[in-house]
Amino acid sequence: MDACNHLQSVLHQEIPLTVAMGITVTHCSRDKVELSAPLDPNINHKCTAFGGSLYSVAVLCGWGFVFHQMRLNKLNGHIVIQHSEVDYKHPVDGEIRAVCEVENELNLNRFLKTYRRKNIARIKLNVKILFNEQVATLFTGHYVIHK
Amino acid sequence: MDACNHLQSVLHQEIPLTVAMGITVTHCSRDKVELSAPLDPNINHKCTAFGGSLYSVAVLCGWGFVFHQMRLNKLNGHIVIQHSEVDYKHPVDGEIRAVCEVENELNLNRFLKTYRRKNIARIKLNVKILFNEQVATLFTGHYVIHK
Repeated sequence: MDACNHLQSVLHQEIPLTVAMGITVTHCSRDKVELSAPLDPNINHKCTAFGGSLYSVAVLCGWGFVFHQMRLNKLNGHIVIQHSEVDYKHPVDGEIRAVCEVENELNLNRFLKTYRRKNIARIKLNVKILFNEQVATLFTGHYVIHK
Repeated sequence: MDACNHLQSVLHQEIPLTVAMGITVTHCSRDKVELSAPLDPNINHKCTAFGGSLYSVAVLCGWGFVFHQMRLNKLNGHIVIQHSEVDYKHPVDGEIRAVCEVENELNLNRFLKTYRRKNIARIKLNVKILFNEQVATLFTGHYVIHK
């Protein structure tokens, strides 16, 4: 099973709401994780994406990014979201597309190194919801991994 | 139709995901709006509530609070979430219960007065997800209403 299918099946099995939301993993590599969800099951009264759906796709994109980094580094542990901030800049009236990329190689390596040494580590990740080539929603999540 | 049923039917009609999540309105008065959702459709792999579901119940609780204030004051307009912050303090391994209460009477009155005068107004609301008599999740949302 490739990385996309693996992450998608983990999400669908472990969080049933992701199936109702129609979330799929459209990219999963060391440098980037991308999740998508169709508008229909996530629509609101203004025919744009519901803010809670935008949040859910974003928080899972960051979670999936950490999950994949741990898998590549043969690490096990729990990934937990501890704090987050969201800026809704523009409405999304089409497919929801969330992207989490390596922004700081040094921080990522430090995070994995800390986890190996202390069995607990923290990382701050930005996830962008892109629409019409703009950042429609900017999500910042503080994730913790622990044994 | 009483205020609870009215708000619940608005949520269910306008945001279909609220039906999949099993969200109900358990209290709706001038001073307080309370939303609930069962754990089952909102569960994650650790048998606790998924962070995206906690967020969605909280953001809708604040939205419902503003909606009800506008209804009581015979005001019409769009209610939009612009920015939010979430602190996940403790996991929720049972029913999700979100509460939004009047914390500052003066701010609420100023918000409604501004909207009447300018057709746009902003309010910051705290929503608490309560579990085992503790604040399990603290959500702060910045809402805007406009014509």
